[in-house]
Amino acid sequence: MAILSQPTQGVSSLFSMRKDSLTNPLPSNCKPVNTKVNISSLSTHLVKSPFLKIEMLSCPFFLLESRAITQYIAYVHSPRGTQLLNLQSHETMAILTMCMEIEAHQFDPPASKLTWEQVIKPLYGLETDHTVVKENEANLEKVLNVYEKRLQESRFLACNSFTLVDLHHLPNIQYLLGTPTKRLFENRPKVHKWVDEITSREAWKMACDQEKSWFNKQRRN
Amino acid sequence: MAILSQPTQGVSSLFSMRKDSLTNPLPSNCKPVNTKVNISSLSTHLVKSPFLKIEMLSCPFFLLESRAITQYIAYVHSPRGTQLLNLQSHETMAILTMCMEIEAHQFDPPASKLTWEQVIKPLYGLETDHTVVKENEANLEKVLNVYEKRLQESRFLACNSFTLVDLHHLPNIQYLLGTPTKRLFENRPKVHKWVDEITSREAWKMACDQEKSWFNKQRRN
Repeated sequence: MAILSQPTQGVSSLFSMRKDSLTNPLPSNCKPVNTKVNISSLSTHLVKSPFLKIEMLSCPFFLLESRAITQYIAYVHSPRGTQLLNLQSHETMAILTMCMEIEAHQFDPPASKLTWEQVIKPLYGLETDHTVVKENEANLEKVLNVYEKRLQESRFLACNSFTLVDLHHLPNIQYLLGTPTKRLFENRPKVHKWVDEITSREAWKMACDQEKSWFNKQRRN
Repeated sequence: MAILSQPTQGVSSLFSMRKDSLTNPLPSNCKPVNTKVNISSLSTHLVKSPFLKIEMLSCPFFLLESRAITQYIAYVHSPRGTQLLNLQSHETMAILTMCMEIEAHQFDPPASKLTWEQVIKPLYGLETDHTVVKENEANLEKVLNVYEKRLQESRFLACNSFTLVDLHHLPNIQYLLGTPTKRLFENRPKVHKWVDEITSREAWKMACDQEKSWFNKQRRN
C-alpha cells in the first residue's frame, strides 16, 4: 500500500467508490492536489491553504480538510451510486453527523497515534514508543467497546447500510490490521465482522492498490 | 460565567439563539442532559453514551457530541430565526463544512489547551504550565494568521453572515479574552473586529449570563 496520510486515503477511497458506480467518477474540473508530489504547482494554493495539509481538492472552488471533501463529494453525487449519506430525515442526518464526530474526536486520536507509532515511525527508522502504544490501546479499547454494543443494533455504525462514517474509519483500521493492535478488533465479535465487511469492499481494495488506485493514477499524471 | 465545558457552551449558545428568535426555542421533548448535575437520571443514557461526555441532548432520539447537536438544531430550525447554515448550494455547504473542520482540528486543539492551562487549572488550584502555554500560543498564532487573511475576504469565517462556524469558536475565545492570550486576537485587526462582533451578540451574552441563560435555567429545573 502507498504510504498516504489517513485523511488522504479516506478521500482516495471515495474517489475509488465513485469509480465503481459512475462512468465519470468526478467532474473533470475536480482534481486532488498532492502537496508532496507536485509542490511546484502549489504557489496559488499556498495563499488559500496555509495549513499545508495533504488532503486538498481543486474543484470549481478550493477545498481542504478530508472530512469536508468526502462530505462534499458524497452530497454532489448523492443521487447516484452507493448512498454514503443518510438523508431520509433530520434524525438520520443527526445520527450520521454524531457518528462522524465520534470517529473524529474519539476513534481517530488513539488510532492515529497507534498508526504513527507502529507503522509510520518504523518506516522512517524511528523507534516505537511502547508506553504510548499501551496508553493509546487502552483508549482505543474504550471506543471499540462502545462500537461492539452499537454494532449489535445495526450492521454498520450509523445505520444498516455503509456510510461515510464507516469509510472514515477505514484508513486507520487498514494500517492497524498489520500491527499487534489487530487483536483489539478481532477480540470483539461484532467489531470483527464489521471490520471484515468494510475492508473487503471492492472500492476499498482498489483504493489500497497502488497500481489500480484512481488517486494514485492521478498523482502520476 | 458558569464553568461549563466549551462544547456545552456552544450548545448552550444555540439554545439561547433560538430563544432570541422563537417563542419555543426547542421542541418541548428536547432537553439537554447534564451529567454532572443529574447523574441519577443517567442510568438509561449510560448504555447509549459510554463516552460520558457532558454535551448530550435528549430528543425523540438520543444525541451526543456538541457539534452534532448544534448542526441538528440548526437544521431542524433552519426555516426560522438566524440562518446558521449556508445551504444555498453544494459549494456553500462544502465551505461551511470545511470551516467547521478547521475549527475542530486546527483552532480547537491549541485554544482548548490554552483555556485549560490558564482558566480551568487555576480554578482547581493547579499550576499553569507556561511551556505548554508558549507552545500552544505559537500554534494558535498560525491559525489566527490564516483567519486574518480569510476575514479580509468575508465578514465572518464561512461567508458574510454569522454561521455555526463562528458560533463554535465562541466558548474558547470568551475564556481566552480573560487571559494574556487575548493579545493574539487584538494584534490582528480583522480577527479583532470579528471577535468583537461575535462576542457582542445578544444571544451569546445571554448564554454567558448564569441567571438569564436558558441552558442554566434548564439545569436548575
